[in-house]
Amino acid sequence: MSSTFIAVRNILNTPEHGIGKKFALTIQVLIIVSLISFSIDTLPNLSSTTKSVLDIIELVTVLIFTVEYLLRLTTSERKVSYLFSFYGIIDLIAILPFYLATTIDLRAVRIFRLLRLIRILKLLKYSRAINHFSAALKSIKEELILFGFMSAIMLYLSAVGIYYFEHQAQPELFQSVFHSLWWAVTTLTTVGYGDMYPITVGGRIFTFFVLMIGLGIVAVPTGLIASAMSKN
Amino acid sequence: MSSTFIAVRNILNTPEHGIGKKFALTIQVLIIVSLISFSIDTLPNLSSTTKSVLDIIELVTVLIFTVEYLLRLTTSERKVSYLFSFYGIIDLIAILPFYLATTIDLRAVRIFRLLRLIRILKLLKYSRAINHFSAALKSIKEELILFGFMSAIMLYLSAVGIYYFEHQAQPELFQSVFHSLWWAVTTLTTVGYGDMYPITVGGRIFTFFVLMIGLGIVAVPTGLIASAMSKN
Amino acid sequence: MSSTFIAVRNILNTPEHGIGKKFALTIQVLIIVSLISFSIDTLPNLSSTTKSVLDIIELVTVLIFTVEYLLRLTTSERKVSYLFSFYGIIDLIAILPFYLATTIDLRAVRIFRLLRLIRILKLLKYSRAINHFSAALKSIKEELILFGFMSAIMLYLSAVGIYYFEHQAQPELFQSVFHSLWWAVTTLTTVGYGDMYPITVGGRIFTFFVLMIGLGIVAVPTGLIASAMSKN
Amino acid sequence: MSSTFIAVRNILNTPEHGIGKKFALTIQVLIIVSLISFSIDTLPNLSSTTKSVLDIIELVTVLIFTVEYLLRLTTSERKVSYLFSFYGIIDLIAILPFYLATTIDLRAVRIFRLLRLIRILKLLKYSRAINHFSAALKSIKEELILFGFMSAIMLYLSAVGIYYFEHQAQPELFQSVFHSLWWAVTTLTTVGYGDMYPITVGGRIFTFFVLMIGLGIVAVPTGLIASAMSKN
Repeated sequence: MSSTFIAVRNILNTPEHGIGKKFALTIQVLIIVSLISFSIDTLPNLSSTTKSVLDIIELVTVLIFTVEYLLRLTTSERKVSYLFSFYGIIDLIAILPFYLATTIDLRAVRIFRLLRLIRILKLLKYSRAINHFSAALKSIKEELILFGFMSAIMLYLSAVGIYYFEHQAQPELFQSVFHSLWWAVTTLTTVGYGDMYPITVGGRIFTFFVLMIGLGIVAVPTGLIASAMSKN
Repeated sequence: MSSTFIAVRNILNTPEHGIGKKFALTIQVLIIVSLISFSIDTLPNLSSTTKSVLDIIELVTVLIFTVEYLLRLTTSERKVSYLFSFYGIIDLIAILPFYLATTIDLRAVRIFRLLRLIRILKLLKYSRAINHFSAALKSIKEELILFGFMSAIMLYLSAVGIYYFEHQAQPELFQSVFHSLWWAVTTLTTVGYGDMYPITVGGRIFTFFVLMIGLGIVAVPTGLIASAMSKN
Repeated sequence: MSSTFIAVRNILNTPEHGIGKKFALTIQVLIIVSLISFSIDTLPNLSSTTKSVLDIIELVTVLIFTVEYLLRLTTSERKVSYLFSFYGIIDLIAILPFYLATTIDLRAVRIFRLLRLIRILKLLKYSRAINHFSAALKSIKEELILFGFMSAIMLYLSAVGIYYFEHQAQPELFQSVFHSLWWAVTTLTTVGYGDMYPITVGGRIFTFFVLMIGLGIVAVPTGLIASAMSKN
Repeated sequence: MSSTFIAVRNILNTPEHGIGKKFALTIQVLIIVSLISFSIDTLPNLSSTTKSVLDIIELVTVLIFTVEYLLRLTTSERKVSYLFSFYGIIDLIAILPFYLATTIDLRAVRIFRLLRLIRILKLLKYSRAINHFSAALKSIKEELILFGFMSAIMLYLSAVGIYYFEHQAQPELFQSVFHSLWWAVTTLTTVGYGDMYPITVGGRIFTFFVLMIGLGIVAVPTGLIASAMSKN
């Protein structure tokens, strides 16, 4: 094993201090630059100059990400396990669309690369918060699945109910149970866009009962997570 | 008692393992198939071919559900108590509409048959979560009724108040106290569809106070359930 | 003191059992009848027959409430303290509008008379829940006032901010700081009717920060009440 | 040090009782008067008389605030530290716009001067509540930053996702990732104005998953604050 080889591996895998930290921070900045550049790219009526600049940024960042990916792969002790690790897959997805020119643009996935940021910023404190969160989730896993299951039943029954009440009065909006499901989702999460709402007396009374029971099901998981986190 | 009789009863009542589990899972899949088929049936502009397929699915599932129902009834040790048990009634409602050809379609009730799923999936863990939930509900029953009572008073007074403030300015929308109740329900649950909202200065100031006091009443039960569940 | 006098007083003041309970329940039913009748009265296009029936119901209920009020007053040991007690005032307001024919209709106040219902239904259990609730409110009184104070500041600053961002772009909607306050109220409570919303880039970024900070202030009191109630 | 000098300093710095309390309350009233006057000033179609009155109120309050500021500065033992303290800066910003006639009106900042009110009202009780709140915030600082970070990722990915689903169907509304971000903010906070919402089947299913996961991230911090406050 050459000493350069080991030096590169150290830089890549110790983002906590020294050159490793500088390198990691540079990559983080590049990720944010590429995310912003990708977002600007979706804006309508861009001048051709702007488009050229964005293309160059994309080219440079992808090149650097590719070099980083290849270095990580070659210097990795267990190449296959890196290849199929969470970060290994994210790193690949982050650069692959550029080479494949796929119709589905996956560049936004690069945001997950920012998760490495956690290792850079005061490592211990945040990993404690993350452990805290995952321990809380684990301790209420069954309750969360139960409430997810009850929420699904609640959503389905609400959709069927409102369909019977409103289909006749608003055939355009409440066309089917599937259209009514959209209403159930926006109502029980209290988003309430206002694109669909009951206008019959029966539909409104039904909505009242759906909300009274449904909010006690759909909103409880959030409270459970908060409570579980403040207990441990 | 014939051995076939006992074998059938065992299959029906032990969905945890063996043939009983395979049978129970088949029924669960059929329930979901029939729910999806029923939902598709509500879609507009279906081709006659699709309609025929849906009719056949309905016919087959109802037949299987009927056979299952009759088997459960005949092999049950206490026939009358099964007939009037929660699952007994659900099982009956799930097939009856087909034979009665009622105008009110109750096929959506089949979703409750999915609750049997809980017995199949790692039984103990989920029944613990359910016990947890029902114990929590029990421990705060009086508080929930109290808040339900206060919410009802709050909703009624909000409706009467906004009626006085907005009736003159928007006679079409705030036609009566009953119409205003609909506004009160969508506002205090923070759904806010935007089909009705105050436009007078008085109505808006009134809404401000209603929200300040009302949210502290209507939203508390959810928090209570979450807290009660994380305590036990 | 005549024995009739004492008997009447006992009936009025012991709604927990015996004739007192029957009397109290009759009054409760009458209150609900009068509230429904009052609400129906606000419906448009009522036939003259319906109007007559509603008038008769109003006449009868007010007469009974008046007799009850006078009996309570005359049989009370401390007449003046009853006159100015919570229930004394509610009882008076419930009948006064009928005799004064005021323009402001206060009949909806009768709903507060329903609070006596608590004494009838399993008395001890619910008064325990009420004590529980008021003890919880007491224990976090300072925190609630503090958050109320911070919410007021938050609402005002949000209104001023959005006024500067949106006034030019939407002079009709964001006419003044007062109009913007209405936007701040519906946004920070997440009701979001959709009658007013920012359209400028600045206004939207401002709204993002207002929501991030504001929800952590406006929504906390509800959680505090729930937590405080589950502690005691 | 002259005795007048010391007397003035005592009045300015002991708002808890005596002349100091009267002075502090007068200033508080003036702040509220100036805030209301400033808000009225934004109303359209004011008569010239009203405008003159508002100008006079502004002139008088600013003069008094200026005198107070200069007195605080000159009687302060550590002049420089007052100059750069929180209240020192707020006091200056509250009067500066008047003299500079800037285009950006910062008079609304005066609301922060109301914070001094806390010292006047039963001092100890409220400062305990504030300590309670800041201790709670401190104890969950890492968790709040973690959830803020996850919320940012959630918002960005939601925006990119909905952009792909809705851009074709609604090019006017979902113009770019930045326009979609506004949708993500109003949806995940459940405000739901109704100015932008998905209409495609894919977009609606995506919104369902975004809400299921997103509400468990965006709404948790509020619950965490409430829980943390009820623990200490």
